[in-house]
Amino acid sequence: MKVYLTRRMTFNAAHKLWVKQWSEEKNLEVFGKCANKNWHGHNYVLYVTVKGKPDPFTGFVMDAKVLKDIIKREITEILDHSNLNLDVPFIPENMQPTTENLTIIIWQRLVSHIRGCELHCIKLHETENIYAEYYGE
Amino acid sequence: MKVYLTRRMTFNAAHKLWVKQWSEEKNLEVFGKCANKNWHGHNYVLYVTVKGKPDPFTGFVMDAKVLKDIIKREITEILDHSNLNLDVPFIPENMQPTTENLTIIIWQRLVSHIRGCELHCIKLHETENIYAEYYGE
Amino acid sequence: MKVYLTRRMTFNAAHKLWVKQWSEEKNLEVFGKCANKNWHGHNYVLYVTVKGKPDPFTGFVMDAKVLKDIIKREITEILDHSNLNLDVPFIPENMQPTTENLTIIIWQRLVSHIRGCELHCIKLHETENIYAEYYGE
Amino acid sequence: MKVYLTRRMTFNAAHKLWVKQWSEEKNLEVFGKCANKNWHGHNYVLYVTVKGKPDPFTGFVMDAKVLKDIIKREITEILDHSNLNLDVPFIPENMQPTTENLTIIIWQRLVSHIRGCELHCIKLHETENIYAEYYGE
Amino acid sequence: MKVYLTRRMTFNAAHKLWVKQWSEEKNLEVFGKCANKNWHGHNYVLYVTVKGKPDPFTGFVMDAKVLKDIIKREITEILDHSNLNLDVPFIPENMQPTTENLTIIIWQRLVSHIRGCELHCIKLHETENIYAEYYGE
Amino acid sequence: MKVYLTRRMTFNAAHKLWVKQWSEEKNLEVFGKCANKNWHGHNYVLYVTVKGKPDPFTGFVMDAKVLKDIIKREITEILDHSNLNLDVPFIPENMQPTTENLTIIIWQRLVSHIRGCELHCIKLHETENIYAEYYGE
Repeated sequence: MKVYLTRRMTFNAAHKLWVKQWSEEKNLEVFGKCANKNWHGHNYVLYVTVKGKPDPFTGFVMDAKVLKDIIKREITEILDHSNLNLDVPFIPENMQPTTENLTIIIWQRLVSHIRGCELHCIKLHETENIYAEYYGE
Repeated sequence: MKVYLTRRMTFNAAHKLWVKQWSEEKNLEVFGKCANKNWHGHNYVLYVTVKGKPDPFTGFVMDAKVLKDIIKREITEILDHSNLNLDVPFIPENMQPTTENLTIIIWQRLVSHIRGCELHCIKLHETENIYAEYYGE
Repeated sequence: MKVYLTRRMTFNAAHKLWVKQWSEEKNLEVFGKCANKNWHGHNYVLYVTVKGKPDPFTGFVMDAKVLKDIIKREITEILDHSNLNLDVPFIPENMQPTTENLTIIIWQRLVSHIRGCELHCIKLHETENIYAEYYGE
Repeated sequence: MKVYLTRRMTFNAAHKLWVKQWSEEKNLEVFGKCANKNWHGHNYVLYVTVKGKPDPFTGFVMDAKVLKDIIKREITEILDHSNLNLDVPFIPENMQPTTENLTIIIWQRLVSHIRGCELHCIKLHETENIYAEYYGE
Repeated sequence: MKVYLTRRMTFNAAHKLWVKQWSEEKNLEVFGKCANKNWHGHNYVLYVTVKGKPDPFTGFVMDAKVLKDIIKREITEILDHSNLNLDVPFIPENMQPTTENLTIIIWQRLVSHIRGCELHCIKLHETENIYAEYYGE
Repeated sequence: MKVYLTRRMTFNAAHKLWVKQWSEEKNLEVFGKCANKNWHGHNYVLYVTVKGKPDPFTGFVMDAKVLKDIIKREITEILDHSNLNLDVPFIPENMQPTTENLTIIIWQRLVSHIRGCELHCIKLHETENIYAEYYGE
């Protein structure tokens, strides 16, 4: 019996989309307002889903408080009130901080910390209208 | 690496549920208030999900603005403030405009316009309590 | 001590905006898509607020279940799955069923049914982006 | 063609997490505030998803009203305003009423009542930040 | 210039509605399921609003983090995962823990801790459909 | 008869809180993470409320589409994807771009554009947990 457990958390950050190898003109053409040199920002909403068998005693796939503490320590405490292009050591310099890429980065950083069950999905809302999901493959 | 990207959009429309081959009595019995001859309506919330590999330069599975423009041009500009039984050329006359059928219709209309990645899911909320999803199969 | 108690309820309905004394051209110019002859519709969200002193025994300004039953009987059971231009006896024929006017109509219909406390506000959402409020004056 | 239809419903309940075979000390260590002897509670939000082919006449995978009536009769009317540890005959005495276990219990109770299509998923929100999903396997 | 600043916070709790001076029969008649002897519970959502002039240097009516810390220390840390009838020293034994009464109790407990501006409103959601507001008068 | 009409709109922006007359140490002490030199950002949600008598023909306090166009032209098109400290001509250089101050700035910029009814309230959400309101006084 496999049950999926999801923890929702939030962080606020600034970013911009900009390819260094491209001219300013091309960056503005491709990214529009998202290429504003002075940055813009979002209230990100992160959903981390793990899967596994509920423990016969506790009824937990994973203690949701432990899951929260891992996400906080590894992700939201570092990303919250940060600049995603400048401040975060585990976002590679050449990687655009798009919602899509952030789901991969967050997966890679969390996966080894989930014990006793498996990481299943990273879902990240950039706005109420746009979100991305990554399942590790 | 496959990432899923979702764009949320809205439209408001009128409809009714009514099978022409059935008597009024049977329509009211099966559809209840949804068969009101004078129509009723909803604020529909549409989620379109595509999947693919993020571009190494842009970090995009698909440019969310392009996705929005396609959905707007092909779907929401036509369905918004429409009567789903009377006004929409691509809803077949014999097809009930239920949430379920609308997800299929929207899939079929969008699928050929998604380039560089794949259409994955059409999710449509009729109310905050009822929604349908279609994955193309 | 005055406390305000609010009950949220929903209904779905069709309507159009159309001034009979005006030409089709003027109606389309003023109301745009809202004048579609074949109607459109919304999921309305209604908030009814009453005010009064909590009862020393029950702690209720008004029994929320009684408030719900009144709203259901007088408003939502009649408006739900209706056409607001055609089906509702207490919406005058010459009154546009705009969100603004609906708040007045709902106030007038509910006010005499609230006993032991006072009706304070009718708030009505037409969409997630537009709502109106009426305080009886 | 397979479409997924989801009905959202709510119920409010009290519960606590407590393993009878464990000491009070160990229960408090593992469950923290959730082990409060005097109980705590939640507004649960339940999503039941069924899958199937839309009927060629009605356009329904399943009549959403029938689905609602089944969920109400079998689940929410029994769980609403209940104590999940004490009041619910179909929650085994030794099973922790965690969100994870509740999804399994709700699946097992609903699955035989879904006719003409298949039960696909039980999703249950305990708070806005925590939810579990079960797909029957 | 007066600006209103609001901080939203949440807590989960159990309660029941029960008048000790009344018979069980009368309690069940008046309170229905809310009188379940074994308790039920809610995810409460609390909005605390203060009003004042923004500081010319900081632009703050009140530091939102300080406001959060006060609400946490005085209210949510005590009410979270509690039984509102049994566990909370500042809820009088004879006071029904209704949403209405809780807004008064929370006001009285917070008002002296708000410095440099004024407490304006306590708003408390019991469910997504029911909330109460108290303005101190 | 006075009815209140509200239009909700959104914009995303970067900002930081920083008093130029203060040392870095004092800025970090007062503003914490909000003083990050590399900025952070938010999805702002703006509610603009106007009040007036519904027009006897149109039923409008104000045409919601006209209201939307004014807010878009005067506010959201300028603030969206901007840096609130650097990019916005009508935010004074010495004014902290706090949620509180932004409500005043937005009021002052909109008030002369509202014709045929009155501006009543500017409400601005910085996150789901913090918002400010300004009523022009």
